[in-house]
Amino acid sequence: MENSEEQKYGVRKLEISDKSKGFIELLQQLSVCDSVSDRDFEDRFRELSAVGDDHVIGVIEDEASGKIIATGSVFIEKKFLRNCGKVGHIEDVVVDSSARGKHLGKRIVSFLTEHARSIGCYKVILDCSLENKAFYEKCGFQHKSLQMAMYFAHH
Amino acid sequence: MENSEEQKYGVRKLEISDKSKGFIELLQQLSVCDSVSDRDFEDRFRELSAVGDDHVIGVIEDEASGKIIATGSVFIEKKFLRNCGKVGHIEDVVVDSSARGKHLGKRIVSFLTEHARSIGCYKVILDCSLENKAFYEKCGFQHKSLQMAMYFAHH
Repeated sequence: MENSEEQKYGVRKLEISDKSKGFIELLQQLSVCDSVSDRDFEDRFRELSAVGDDHVIGVIEDEASGKIIATGSVFIEKKFLRNCGKVGHIEDVVVDSSARGKHLGKRIVSFLTEHARSIGCYKVILDCSLENKAFYEKCGFQHKSLQMAMYFAHH
Repeated sequence: MENSEEQKYGVRKLEISDKSKGFIELLQQLSVCDSVSDRDFEDRFRELSAVGDDHVIGVIEDEASGKIIATGSVFIEKKFLRNCGKVGHIEDVVVDSSARGKHLGKRIVSFLTEHARSIGCYKVILDCSLENKAFYEKCGFQHKSLQMAMYFAHH
């Protein structure tokens, strides 16, 4: 049972064909995102692929529907601090609204966290709303500080 | 007067010779950082230089002492969200304890923010303690959400 769930909802890296499996539509559940042209998608995909382990996007594909139903990304910041340490930044975690309650978010976060750990980060961080705080605490995170933002007018 | 302050405390990009001007010692005022070997410093410096505008470290050098007295970094995250948008992440802002009250922190943050804006980011974000919230509000930032962190045991 455990194993079949594991297989059914395993996390893998984003593939270029995932655009046709609803990857962008999934992101639209998280934030503003118009439709992205195939060309723009491929350009960005290749740009991110080029940095390899320094930027990884995990996805869960629903085998029955062939749709991407969960995703999240982690990229690696290289510092001088902490003896030239590295930090994983988790961004853009979202689970399809029809697939909530299956712990897919936790699977995605574990995948991203494990990636950061495996390549030697001393910590992994993310920003979330107050309503998602308890979820990330269950994933092993602790509230640390405040996120501040400045939006630029031309967007 | 304004101009001479501008010249005296202008922000420039980190140079490889800044290690001998107290750059690492300055970072030690911010967080845990043992001394870094010349070799490790140069390796990390070249690694960051290789990504060009995607990771910029600003510094202010005190002309009188030849020491680096303020620094901060910004790196650029490339997303699929927001129509393949880009986000600037500000990290590791610190002003030497002997040089506080000269608005050097604000100069550093402006430099980093302007860099992010100039290369087309739709926003710039950072994490800070409650005690630094008012400073970043003066810099034009707004409190947005919570920062969560997970530290790995092997560090």
